[in-house]
Amino acid sequence: MYRSHSCGELRATNNNQEVILSGWVQKVRDKGFVIWADLRDRYGITQLIFDEERTSKALLEQARSLGREFVIQIKGTVIERASKNSNIPTGDIEILVKELTVLNKALVPPFTIEDKTDGGEDIRMKYRYLDIRRNPVKNNLIFRHKVAMEVRKFLSDEGFIEVETPYLIKSTPEGARDFVVPSRMNEGQFYALPQSPQTFKQLLMVGGMDKYFQIVKCFRDEDLRADRQPEFTQIDCEMAFVEQEDILNIFENLTKYLLKEVKGFEIDSFPRMTYDDAMRTYGNDKPDIRFDMKFGELNNVAQHKEFGIFNDAELVVGIAVPGAATYTRKEIDALIDWVRRPQVGAKGMVYAKYNEDGSFKSSVDKFYDQEDLAKWAEVTNAKPGDLICVLSGDANKTRTQLSALRMELAERLGLRNPEEFAPLWVIDFPLLELDEETGHYHAMHHPFTSPKPGQLELLDTDPGAVKANAYDLVLNGNEIGGGSIRIHDKDMQATMFKHLGFTPEEAKAQFGFLMDAFQYGAPPHGGLAFGLDRLVAILGGQETIRDFIAFPKNNSGRDVMIDAPAKIDEVQLKELHLKLDLKA
Amino acid sequence: MYRSHSCGELRATNNNQEVILSGWVQKVRDKGFVIWADLRDRYGITQLIFDEERTSKALLEQARSLGREFVIQIKGTVIERASKNSNIPTGDIEILVKELTVLNKALVPPFTIEDKTDGGEDIRMKYRYLDIRRNPVKNNLIFRHKVAMEVRKFLSDEGFIEVETPYLIKSTPEGARDFVVPSRMNEGQFYALPQSPQTFKQLLMVGGMDKYFQIVKCFRDEDLRADRQPEFTQIDCEMAFVEQEDILNIFENLTKYLLKEVKGFEIDSFPRMTYDDAMRTYGNDKPDIRFDMKFGELNNVAQHKEFGIFNDAELVVGIAVPGAATYTRKEIDALIDWVRRPQVGAKGMVYAKYNEDGSFKSSVDKFYDQEDLAKWAEVTNAKPGDLICVLSGDANKTRTQLSALRMELAERLGLRNPEEFAPLWVIDFPLLELDEETGHYHAMHHPFTSPKPGQLELLDTDPGAVKANAYDLVLNGNEIGGGSIRIHDKDMQATMFKHLGFTPEEAKAQFGFLMDAFQYGAPPHGGLAFGLDRLVAILGGQETIRDFIAFPKNNSGRDVMIDAPAKIDEVQLKELHLKLDLKA
Repeated sequence: MYRSHSCGELRATNNNQEVILSGWVQKVRDKGFVIWADLRDRYGITQLIFDEERTSKALLEQARSLGREFVIQIKGTVIERASKNSNIPTGDIEILVKELTVLNKALVPPFTIEDKTDGGEDIRMKYRYLDIRRNPVKNNLIFRHKVAMEVRKFLSDEGFIEVETPYLIKSTPEGARDFVVPSRMNEGQFYALPQSPQTFKQLLMVGGMDKYFQIVKCFRDEDLRADRQPEFTQIDCEMAFVEQEDILNIFENLTKYLLKEVKGFEIDSFPRMTYDDAMRTYGNDKPDIRFDMKFGELNNVAQHKEFGIFNDAELVVGIAVPGAATYTRKEIDALIDWVRRPQVGAKGMVYAKYNEDGSFKSSVDKFYDQEDLAKWAEVTNAKPGDLICVLSGDANKTRTQLSALRMELAERLGLRNPEEFAPLWVIDFPLLELDEETGHYHAMHHPFTSPKPGQLELLDTDPGAVKANAYDLVLNGNEIGGGSIRIHDKDMQATMFKHLGFTPEEAKAQFGFLMDAFQYGAPPHGGLAFGLDRLVAILGGQETIRDFIAFPKNNSGRDVMIDAPAKIDEVQLKELHLKLDLKA
Repeated sequence: MYRSHSCGELRATNNNQEVILSGWVQKVRDKGFVIWADLRDRYGITQLIFDEERTSKALLEQARSLGREFVIQIKGTVIERASKNSNIPTGDIEILVKELTVLNKALVPPFTIEDKTDGGEDIRMKYRYLDIRRNPVKNNLIFRHKVAMEVRKFLSDEGFIEVETPYLIKSTPEGARDFVVPSRMNEGQFYALPQSPQTFKQLLMVGGMDKYFQIVKCFRDEDLRADRQPEFTQIDCEMAFVEQEDILNIFENLTKYLLKEVKGFEIDSFPRMTYDDAMRTYGNDKPDIRFDMKFGELNNVAQHKEFGIFNDAELVVGIAVPGAATYTRKEIDALIDWVRRPQVGAKGMVYAKYNEDGSFKSSVDKFYDQEDLAKWAEVTNAKPGDLICVLSGDANKTRTQLSALRMELAERLGLRNPEEFAPLWVIDFPLLELDEETGHYHAMHHPFTSPKPGQLELLDTDPGAVKANAYDLVLNGNEIGGGSIRIHDKDMQATMFKHLGFTPEEAKAQFGFLMDAFQYGAPPHGGLAFGLDRLVAILGGQETIRDFIAFPKNNSGRDVMIDAPAKIDEVQLKELHLKLDLKA
């Protein structure tokens, strides 16, 4: 038996018990005649004491030879500590060691195994198995497990059935890019890894499963932005005989349940906002509503004066930054530099200080008097003490720029409290999105999303105006879930494919099985998928999904620990009927 | 709102309620002035009644136009049925329909959607979404969900943490064959899909996660035997600071818990048998012990007589077939033909009838008298009325043949009761297995399995005799799980790789990350994996795993519903830096 107790378990009530513990040596403090060592496992840390008087000199010598991260087993007696440590649950006791076995030695780890480590990201990724020993990473993984368990419990209790859909499916050119898998048995043919189980969950609805869910890995072979992974996990759900309202209700309840169970955070019903309103009010389809700073459109009050820049702009829009009227000239210049960075791209920024005494001081006092600026304050909902920041130009671009500024200021002002949760449904998304490069429309959600009732005819005349039965759940400025009511009619699905630029042959070759299925009694259905990685990170009060994945890949899609991907040998290639076609 | 109730929900207590139901039309019975229809959903069937008198002629006409599998919504009143049907929970009521909406029409399905269908396997696979509407398939999927939920509950309650390990890993030539995934971003390089999360779960142990589990898809690109799938699901587990006994206990408890929760079947502690005993007693390392028919070795009692075939044989071994002494000559000849089939491969079979009156009648009466045959009966534990079947020849082959005969006879005699569960631990597996084709040893379990203490030195002198800390859980003649205590020492792991024919360079290239990890404080650890597909099938009382997989592949690894794998286009290949290399 390797242990009678874990390293997080013993208390003063265990005093005088004989125990066996196993774990890792966290640190050793050598005081000559007595040595203390901290023994660590998943459950906690227990202090060991090696004492020349009470045990033996040989044991003391043995303890002296222990290094950090050695794996040891000890037998000993629980005793009361002389100086108690109220910071850890085992802090009232220590183990007077009588027997010590080194189960495995350890090289000096390349970084310290402490909550705050000295290791940079690269080295921690290479030795991820050591990084996982650190509490922050370990606790994130345990937290992820807890969230996943609660999701399953909630959905299962609601009558959802978890069904495993296949990973080896068929490649389709639609959407982001597939990873493909060459087949040995079917020469020259490839499977694809699913970007989502979308078509399979719809087929399950056609199959009468009614309420489906799955926590499932999905794959996307695309250039990885800072916080994306080529493999990611979705909570994927689908329901039959439902309207949008049914789906929003269930998944609002799921989210409330999670917030309560894993964070102790209670919340009433979630606000809803149309896509159009979100764009107008926050310049963003996933607004962070933990804080205010709503957009005020100033065209009516700021145009038609002498200020040419505003007069020429499609949109003049501002936000009131709470308490920022005291910003110095230098601080404001820094803000202006910030919005001018290429990543933001504004040409400049106009500001107006709404002083505590009720007066205004703006960068455009030449053109706007106090009365004009008071109107700005009204439109942006500014209070005395606030700073009004105004951008102008092309409507869409300006909104995006002001949204970036809003988020940056909220960050600087500490308004993005990770322990506060502000969910929001964004609804009525456009069905189609214009690709400015190609001039073609593509599906904003995916090609299986149904247009809102009565909007089908608009497809021919004004495709960009068609609204979809699609919705996103936004939490603290992140899209954590999205879904739609699906098309369940073969002809409507064919019409959609046509508008997305598929020939009937292409549509049939790629999605014929789904359209066939719609002919055999497909029920109305819809669903939603949550990004588990992101959801867990936000619930965990952090922003980086990588911190909640046991073995993440880096920005080049590499696992630097196992060094994958890697070359495979010629024999393997030959069996797969493939040759490399490398650039010179 | 599509429905107020499900089709499995209404009872006599709901009489006179106004309800809305949605579902599929199972069948329509037209009696002219009245029409009954069965409406089906996941939850059950409810009878609808359309009645000229009580509703309208127009509605009757509408009902008349309904076809099988139409998706409809009805509004109506719950009424008491004239002739009740006690076979279904809703059999006391029917719905007097007042309003009918066809939500979607249906073509005539290619096979009947009934518990017993007229569809063959191929057509049901092509239209799997229709097959899933049938109760047997639907219930299997729901059963699978229930088993998976209970597994997670049990393990989570035991302190195990479900950790997702990566799907895009590194190809290794070890073991069965990898599916590979070309990387777009890393030119000329490939990921591999995991055959199991073996190395990652071991790294989690090095990382201090202590108790890990995961229900996870695994992949193996090999010729598919009748009941294998290229993608399959494992319940994968690993524990640190454990010995074999700890692991057997936990997973014995898990299995007991599942049998109790999902089958109401209670069982005491599981018997254990060494690999050697299993082979000697049942000719099989996964014996079905729901029935007896243990092997009796007859060398001592049947050799050294005049019968040359037995005298020349390495092994003479028999079983007593209960109650089969009454078999006719024709029946016995059929049995002999059966063992002679190429799939079994015996040259012949000797038999002795142990008649109810205590006398014996054998096919070798010329060589063996009644007293000799009484000894056979003693060794094979035959009772009056039994038939003793005896095979002889090379020991290993003969055991395998007799094992096949034993299973066949049990099947014919109805001894394989699918509602009875007989688990068994098989322990002390050999570490290595001789590949008769190449003359090389390979790891019987996998190269991370530790030899039993003190057996390491045998590796050089008698590798085939080395026993491993490896164990299988057998249920009703199927291996449902297997595992081992792992090597956690770098040098021992290097020694193992050497014995498996790896050069140090190969070992380092493929598993260097694991051996490196062992240097940084690896705890003793071990684990086990259950095959979920098989486990669910056996618990469900069936033999075919395909029946418990929502979208299985056929024996050529094809998904015939979506027609995958398939060709991909030249652009995709080019982006992956690949060319096809097809045979003429």
